[in-house]
Amino acid sequence: MVKITAHDLAKKQKEISVAEFFERNKHILGFGNSTRALITSVKEGVDNSLDSCEEVNILPDVYVEVKNHEDSECKIIIADNGPGIVKKQIPHIFGRLLYGSRFHAIRQSRGQQGIGISAVVLYGQLTTGKHAIVTSKVEEDRPAVVMELAIDTNKNRAEVISRDTVHWDKPSGTKIEINIRADYKRGKRFVYDYLQLTSIVNPHAHITYKDAEGQLHVFERTAETLPGKAIEIKPHPYGVELGTLIKMAKHTNSRKLSSFLKSEFSSMGDRTTKAACEKAGLDKNINPKEMTREQFLALHRAFNKIKIMAPSTECLSPISETLIKRSLKNETMEISPEFIVTSSRPPSVYSGNPFQVEVGLVYGGKLPKDSQVQIMRFANRVPLLYQQGGCVITSAITSIDWRRYGLDQTSGKGIPTGPAIFLTHISSTQIPFTSESKEAIADIPEIENEIKLAFRECARKVQHHISKKVKRKKTHEKFDLITKILPEIAKKSADMLDKPVPALEGVITKIMDVIWIEDVIEYETVERVPVQTTLTGENTEGQTSGTITKSRILVVNYKKNPQKFNLYAVIPQDAVVGTITPKPTKVTDNYIKWNLDTIQPANKIDINFELAGLEKGDFDENDLYIENINAAYVIGADKWEGD
Amino acid sequence: MVKITAHDLAKKQKEISVAEFFERNKHILGFGNSTRALITSVKEGVDNSLDSCEEVNILPDVYVEVKNHEDSECKIIIADNGPGIVKKQIPHIFGRLLYGSRFHAIRQSRGQQGIGISAVVLYGQLTTGKHAIVTSKVEEDRPAVVMELAIDTNKNRAEVISRDTVHWDKPSGTKIEINIRADYKRGKRFVYDYLQLTSIVNPHAHITYKDAEGQLHVFERTAETLPGKAIEIKPHPYGVELGTLIKMAKHTNSRKLSSFLKSEFSSMGDRTTKAACEKAGLDKNINPKEMTREQFLALHRAFNKIKIMAPSTECLSPISETLIKRSLKNETMEISPEFIVTSSRPPSVYSGNPFQVEVGLVYGGKLPKDSQVQIMRFANRVPLLYQQGGCVITSAITSIDWRRYGLDQTSGKGIPTGPAIFLTHISSTQIPFTSESKEAIADIPEIENEIKLAFRECARKVQHHISKKVKRKKTHEKFDLITKILPEIAKKSADMLDKPVPALEGVITKIMDVIWIEDVIEYETVERVPVQTTLTGENTEGQTSGTITKSRILVVNYKKNPQKFNLYAVIPQDAVVGTITPKPTKVTDNYIKWNLDTIQPANKIDINFELAGLEKGDFDENDLYIENINAAYVIGADKWEGD
Repeated sequence: MVKITAHDLAKKQKEISVAEFFERNKHILGFGNSTRALITSVKEGVDNSLDSCEEVNILPDVYVEVKNHEDSECKIIIADNGPGIVKKQIPHIFGRLLYGSRFHAIRQSRGQQGIGISAVVLYGQLTTGKHAIVTSKVEEDRPAVVMELAIDTNKNRAEVISRDTVHWDKPSGTKIEINIRADYKRGKRFVYDYLQLTSIVNPHAHITYKDAEGQLHVFERTAETLPGKAIEIKPHPYGVELGTLIKMAKHTNSRKLSSFLKSEFSSMGDRTTKAACEKAGLDKNINPKEMTREQFLALHRAFNKIKIMAPSTECLSPISETLIKRSLKNETMEISPEFIVTSSRPPSVYSGNPFQVEVGLVYGGKLPKDSQVQIMRFANRVPLLYQQGGCVITSAITSIDWRRYGLDQTSGKGIPTGPAIFLTHISSTQIPFTSESKEAIADIPEIENEIKLAFRECARKVQHHISKKVKRKKTHEKFDLITKILPEIAKKSADMLDKPVPALEGVITKIMDVIWIEDVIEYETVERVPVQTTLTGENTEGQTSGTITKSRILVVNYKKNPQKFNLYAVIPQDAVVGTITPKPTKVTDNYIKWNLDTIQPANKIDINFELAGLEKGDFDENDLYIENINAAYVIGADKWEGD
Repeated sequence: MVKITAHDLAKKQKEISVAEFFERNKHILGFGNSTRALITSVKEGVDNSLDSCEEVNILPDVYVEVKNHEDSECKIIIADNGPGIVKKQIPHIFGRLLYGSRFHAIRQSRGQQGIGISAVVLYGQLTTGKHAIVTSKVEEDRPAVVMELAIDTNKNRAEVISRDTVHWDKPSGTKIEINIRADYKRGKRFVYDYLQLTSIVNPHAHITYKDAEGQLHVFERTAETLPGKAIEIKPHPYGVELGTLIKMAKHTNSRKLSSFLKSEFSSMGDRTTKAACEKAGLDKNINPKEMTREQFLALHRAFNKIKIMAPSTECLSPISETLIKRSLKNETMEISPEFIVTSSRPPSVYSGNPFQVEVGLVYGGKLPKDSQVQIMRFANRVPLLYQQGGCVITSAITSIDWRRYGLDQTSGKGIPTGPAIFLTHISSTQIPFTSESKEAIADIPEIENEIKLAFRECARKVQHHISKKVKRKKTHEKFDLITKILPEIAKKSADMLDKPVPALEGVITKIMDVIWIEDVIEYETVERVPVQTTLTGENTEGQTSGTITKSRILVVNYKKNPQKFNLYAVIPQDAVVGTITPKPTKVTDNYIKWNLDTIQPANKIDINFELAGLEKGDFDENDLYIENINAAYVIGADKWEGD
């Protein structure tokens, strides 16, 4: 046998281009089969369109078209009204993997790695041999540029096959046309689903989809304002790796450790910087470029021993409970669900990366009772369609014992059964996906915990809702009995005896023996909403008409003694409070509080308040609480548990 | 609000180095948390050692050491007796991602992408700021080279911090020392498990592990021969993508389409090449560099319309049923399982990539009866420890209704419960992992199907084994009763009556009314195994002593009539048949067949055969079948169902 040596092996060693790598491992990028390839291609195009529109404050208007002219081949066209791409950058953005603008920026965005759309171009070329065509218009009064692109995978660079200018009838925008091998028959349903889900978590986007049969599907915009813009922040000391710290110090312009810390990290003020240096036993004036590994190590350890303010969360752009509710309501109209509850956690941090969890729960209506609940997963406003089993969202949901909250679940584990949809949205500066295909989120304990907390809160709301409903139904029956049959009997008896009909209020009160609270909500469209900005800081500029939500609460004392107590009405965070009668004792971001005057038996009080900043249906049921009275006497409100 | 334009955005666009990309996305490479990081680091080092030893035909001797000198930091040392790495290549192999020798080679190997070990170096640097140290010796009579390496992530290139020569007391080899952040306490168990599992599927490797407490664990070699070497093959036309075909034609040296097809693809001879050109309507003499996209498309389509021989499977190196059984036996000794069955599928193909499935099933003994069965997953001889839920092996197992095969399983789905271990090994020129961390295999239908078929076969063997056992036990009781008690009664009666003891054979035969087949297997160690090569082509060169497996089969006719039938003994594929008595009718790779002479009632036949090429315990139970007789009359063999 010939002896093979290290020298023989050395001859075969060579570099692999990143394009070749992904060409070979296309399943890692979500192109594992022809069905998934179709969805992934649409997804990457739409993600890019939405990201670029938001970046320049344009309400997105995205057009998606899929043509299926050839067997097992599709042409995908995605066009937007975004800012367009300057000519010089087109070949890089569409024809080069690992090229982009968002990789180093710490803020929430859909795309980040500069792989997505170039991977689609690569896949299209690999499977059809055809080139991608990109049209881009960056200025209103100049023509659009059209480029035909291929990728040289050995070099990971685009080849520009042709370039031209063309008239395009919009102020600015980008359009891409790519041919890919795809299974349209099996994939068409998922394209629709994907766009519908995208529309749910991007209520500010208008999406038009023309399918291969030529049918147009329009996903309307349900919010006229852009989401709060995610602001880029600096890295937080809690999450920085030792190696990254050393690298940052090597490239800094600061000559002193203190200025390095203050200028290149977030949450580092004078006090924290001083504390970190002291804890590490370092002179704050030393030059960071001259520090030893041991000094960096001491500094790195000091970071985790001192208290540093959490990173600013302006880098995140959550959807908000109101918009989630509105979208869910809009999309589940045909199901006519019994109710929709939402819950939003405060921002949190894992390895220095800020993140936030929002969940929504749709219950009842035409949803199937004997199937597993439907799980909708979203990350940075992008729907996740595959690998549900390997996602932290699923493991968080399945680890909750849902039987306590009225859903079926074998042995208190696994996906529960019942007429419900569970929606989860995670926003983060860096979503820890399990693979480059971005289909599942890794099992980070901090994230799992936040999802659990959010769902538990939602579940409690569901429970609360159901118990309130049951209680109210029972009392309603009693009420009907008393208020209809009793007077009739009284009237008949009086007639027979030829006596006047007696006053029954006292009797009714005695039988009812409760405080009855009922509410009605109405919407009124007005010319101009009399507010400048909502509480969450959303930009309402240019909004000239809107809806006023009018809530009327009726409190009736059906007890035999006079009653005096406090009432709380919880209001949505995005709402702005208008007129309130009677005058409340306190108004916060979260609630309105009244110290009610004494109500005499059989008497009532009328309470009214108006909310602006919401749309019709956003707020369709009051969440009422009472204080200083035994909650057992009250129908329609629960005990106030404090702020 | 300031208007942001495409020009503003263009300023932020830039290239991302692949090292930066993976540094940021380290969880994709299996460094998601400090426990996993430890296993991944050991795994990448061991994979490299095994691959390099096999490549130069050296029986691997791998040393693994983990030190835990600092809190949450480990030093990992991995040394082998492989060929070493030439000086010039050291910085590239350990300090540059996407650099290697196996990416373009179509044959089975553990590593392929040139990412693994450089990712460990990168992770070590990122989390500890320390450099990696590599020692390499390529020639016996020259000193070893020692290099200290860092990675410049902005450039994806190694920085050589220092280099030196040193005496190393072995002919050749590579050693790497890396410090990483790791959770030793939680990870130590997994390191041991990982190495144990590695040893199961690499019976030719000797692995020594020194843990942080200083304890030595030795995983002995159980096979003295290297696995059959995987030979590099050319791409197969069935799996080639259109884009790849075009690229290949662009770079070919062939001037004619026919020679291009014959020289650059596997399975393309004169006949198939002619058929492909005809089907595509192409002249076989055209220059491939001048072909149009439409012509390539026609050719690509033609490939899938004509019959082309499956790719050669010499690019694969399966473990073999015998070695799987031997390893499982060795590793489960303490459990003393009731039996171990294995099953091996013929090689198959997905998207042009050859692959082969082998499975093993350990049953009974001290394995827990009320837990889910233990699933062991392997790909190209590498254990897969994480993401079991997202792996095609798991989905194949859970889709089988195991209740039919005597295991518990809720509603016939999910992981079954019972005292069993399920082992699956998949060999392929390209394992379709779901992510770069190589922890789970994607759901490719062809692979899933082969796994199911293999397990069904195994399950049938289990069923067969159990029913044979039950049947034999019953008959044994009857047999004991008849052969012990009956003679005693006869003797007593004869004594009492003072008459001679009657001949009972006829009576016993009448009561038993079966053909009784029993077998015994013995092993004998001999000086020299009298064979040159085993049937699977394994290299037995230099093997001067070995084991002879001696099988004795006893066939007794306990029926009242003379019996004549055929008997088959199934033999393991790796075995070589020696002396056989009586003379068999037929001997194939799979079985020995005898046309037995007529056996008179109460008479018996003794059958003996010898097997070489196996070790003690490899073959411990005969698999016997009968033909031309009603199987209901026979204990110890089943009906022969054909070849």
